[in-house]
Amino acid sequence: MTTDRLTRQLAFVLELDKLKTILRQTLLTDSSRQENDAEHSWHVAMMAVLLAEYAPEGADPLAASRMLLFHDVVEIDAGDTFIHDDKGNADKAAREQEAADRLYGLLPPDQATELRALWDEYEERATPTARFADALDRLQPIMNNFATQGGTWKPHNVTAGKVLKLVERIKAGAPALGEYAEGLVEEAVRRGYLLP
Amino acid sequence: MTTDRLTRQLAFVLELDKLKTILRQTLLTDSSRQENDAEHSWHVAMMAVLLAEYAPEGADPLAASRMLLFHDVVEIDAGDTFIHDDKGNADKAAREQEAADRLYGLLPPDQATELRALWDEYEERATPTARFADALDRLQPIMNNFATQGGTWKPHNVTAGKVLKLVERIKAGAPALGEYAEGLVEEAVRRGYLLP
Repeated sequence: MTTDRLTRQLAFVLELDKLKTILRQTLLTDSSRQENDAEHSWHVAMMAVLLAEYAPEGADPLAASRMLLFHDVVEIDAGDTFIHDDKGNADKAAREQEAADRLYGLLPPDQATELRALWDEYEERATPTARFADALDRLQPIMNNFATQGGTWKPHNVTAGKVLKLVERIKAGAPALGEYAEGLVEEAVRRGYLLP
Repeated sequence: MTTDRLTRQLAFVLELDKLKTILRQTLLTDSSRQENDAEHSWHVAMMAVLLAEYAPEGADPLAASRMLLFHDVVEIDAGDTFIHDDKGNADKAAREQEAADRLYGLLPPDQATELRALWDEYEERATPTARFADALDRLQPIMNNFATQGGTWKPHNVTAGKVLKLVERIKAGAPALGEYAEGLVEEAVRRGYLLP
């Protein structure tokens, strides 16, 4: 017999499918199309496992991986907000809180509370685990932008200064990876993928 | 300074991007297109967290989640083999072993060994964790097929008997979810999504 609890959990599982249709600005490395939120979440969750040794003291890389699996779920309702879109970022928090209410509300209350807390921890970047997760979420699009010769940067006239602000966040969550990203940005400017 | 170790790890991270272009037979729940391996891996890794309480004794759901993140990486080279394609399944193992050699060989040797062992554990289904992971990997396409009114089943004339064999594997790794899947298959036959 299927319990009410399982029914709610599976309704959430089915709802998650929609994250596969939410597009980000980032291109795939072969430039064939924009990346979606579900595959992006997979990519950064993989990075948390593969790059665990660069996590700062006190961070739990496997917990960061789980955090990254869930970090964009609210975008099912709120949509993806391009990080260099200042206008879209002004009401992003309000839109995402409303989305979190509806989406996590599909789950049994204990799980809703737990996963909502996980997402809050991520958003607040108050713990080493959350800062490590955030660093990977910043690094992956920089890597894809470099691989696509400025695929997102060029059409949006993004400058090195803007990207270096994100690199600061990578440094805060994974110093060695921040240093790597900084080198990538410098090389991107030299190659003309990114405005100085 | 970027070490040789980090260079290898990041080369693997970039290579992973290709999994986003490997298509499976399963459709998204809105029937708009086929699902790719990266977003599928994300979906089942999420299920391991959300449905952890249905894991059998001795299984580690968070380890299963990590296992599911990696379970299809070999398909970057070997491609996806449709589960009801008997011909494709005949040489699947050999193609995937070769793929694992090349892909995990991009990583530093210690990580290559660790992640290869994780994939072997998954493939052999010899541990409760691996059987739980396998159960979720079987359940998700059944859920999507039901949601799309037989999206993959109908064009391939799949019968209930074939799907019920997969349900046995779900039961072996997560009995309550297997029972749920069995009910879904029966209902799918009643509705004409699946041949009796």
